[in-house]
Amino acid sequence: MTVAAQMLDSYPKDLGGVDREALQACIESCVECAQACTACADACLSEDAVARLVTCIRTCADCADVCDVTGRVLSRHTGYDANLTRAVLEACATACKACGDECERHAEMHAHCRVCAEACRRCERACRDLLAGLG
Amino acid sequence: MTVAAQMLDSYPKDLGGVDREALQACIESCVECAQACTACADACLSEDAVARLVTCIRTCADCADVCDVTGRVLSRHTGYDANLTRAVLEACATACKACGDECERHAEMHAHCRVCAEACRRCERACRDLLAGLG
Amino acid sequence: MTVAAQMLDSYPKDLGGVDREALQACIESCVECAQACTACADACLSEDAVARLVTCIRTCADCADVCDVTGRVLSRHTGYDANLTRAVLEACATACKACGDECERHAEMHAHCRVCAEACRRCERACRDLLAGLG
Amino acid sequence: MTVAAQMLDSYPKDLGGVDREALQACIESCVECAQACTACADACLSEDAVARLVTCIRTCADCADVCDVTGRVLSRHTGYDANLTRAVLEACATACKACGDECERHAEMHAHCRVCAEACRRCERACRDLLAGLG
Repeated sequence: MTVAAQMLDSYPKDLGGVDREALQACIESCVECAQACTACADACLSEDAVARLVTCIRTCADCADVCDVTGRVLSRHTGYDANLTRAVLEACATACKACGDECERHAEMHAHCRVCAEACRRCERACRDLLAGLG
Repeated sequence: MTVAAQMLDSYPKDLGGVDREALQACIESCVECAQACTACADACLSEDAVARLVTCIRTCADCADVCDVTGRVLSRHTGYDANLTRAVLEACATACKACGDECERHAEMHAHCRVCAEACRRCERACRDLLAGLG
Repeated sequence: MTVAAQMLDSYPKDLGGVDREALQACIESCVECAQACTACADACLSEDAVARLVTCIRTCADCADVCDVTGRVLSRHTGYDANLTRAVLEACATACKACGDECERHAEMHAHCRVCAEACRRCERACRDLLAGLG
Repeated sequence: MTVAAQMLDSYPKDLGGVDREALQACIESCVECAQACTACADACLSEDAVARLVTCIRTCADCADVCDVTGRVLSRHTGYDANLTRAVLEACATACKACGDECERHAEMHAHCRVCAEACRRCERACRDLLAGLG
């Protein structure tokens, strides 16, 4: 059982109408994707072809930041605000789509871009699944 | 001339079609609001009436995180992505609206909530102004 | 194989003299602890006894922020700076010690504090192990 | 009067033995430096000479993250922990020294590096001044 799951289980009040499974998957995907994007931006920076990777580095930096904050917002349940959750999930899905597309273009050349693109795809899907359940 | 303004002036490439004034105002509002919200969450935590301020603390924590990331995304211009900028600005305006409304309810009682609500209103307006200019 | 491990494996240059196992363990502990602390601060906020948990909430907020940044700094290897890595690891071990001690005081009463204290202990140990290897 | 100053003035409890002026200066320097470093990393990324700026980009990314978190920790006064404040200030001064030195090497060539180096020097000094006052 992951720590994120244990934290959800020990929350003292009701989690509201949210889909518990989808919420946990989304928190874990955000945290994983944020780390992957930070590492991918740095790995791109060390490639000899760095000049061809500047858009990738920027998109990874944004996606790391947005996933990070989304994981934080989703880890809070007190005074839940569906509007804010929805807006943050939309921004996160958008960041993951952009970063997934950009990293995919370099996936054959650079393994870190392939791993990062996969993390972005998973996180985008997790955000959309959670959004769908919010109604 | 602020440091944020100097950084915009020294960006080596074109800033794109973005409204330079609105962009600077929005970056500075995000940075200011993030700090105010972090401080307000903490000030609420030290109030004797903390039990009545839990929603305010949570909303401030979210708003601090979202404003922080919005200030970062707006400080980057390389490989500009209008979709992501728009989604992040929408999330930031939503967070500032929620936090401004919540802090306003406590503004007469707590000066930190009044100052924070004002910072949230300015930041929400700055996000909406920048969004309007993105077309 | 975790995503963090895959990102380390696909870094294009040498990782330097760092202990690869200790580095991966520390990145993963930081990321896990940051999420646990964010969730614990929020869970404390929802407890009826919130007034007795204000120090815990504050310490969790700091620890979440410091672990988050430590995970980021450790995920970057380009232009490695041992002084900065050391200073950040010291700050992270200090934050985890403080938060682990504080959460432990509430561990019997609140399961989220127990889970969070355990994450803090693991992360503090991972930081100290990595520090020891830096010489 | 800045928003950071207003937030300090409206904190409901005592700020402890800390030097009020030095604290405010340090919060404001951290926030300013974090934004400058984020913008400088991105500006470097858009330079034709990006391959010569990879260490600068990485150092700016770290310094932005560390200044950001330091500004957050210093904006909280509830349950004040001198050990943690000291460790975070040490990490921040170290990050600012490293980034100030690196950006200074490119200051004649790139205005954004000059502006960023100045922000790093101010922030390093503000951290050391605050540290000195902590005894």
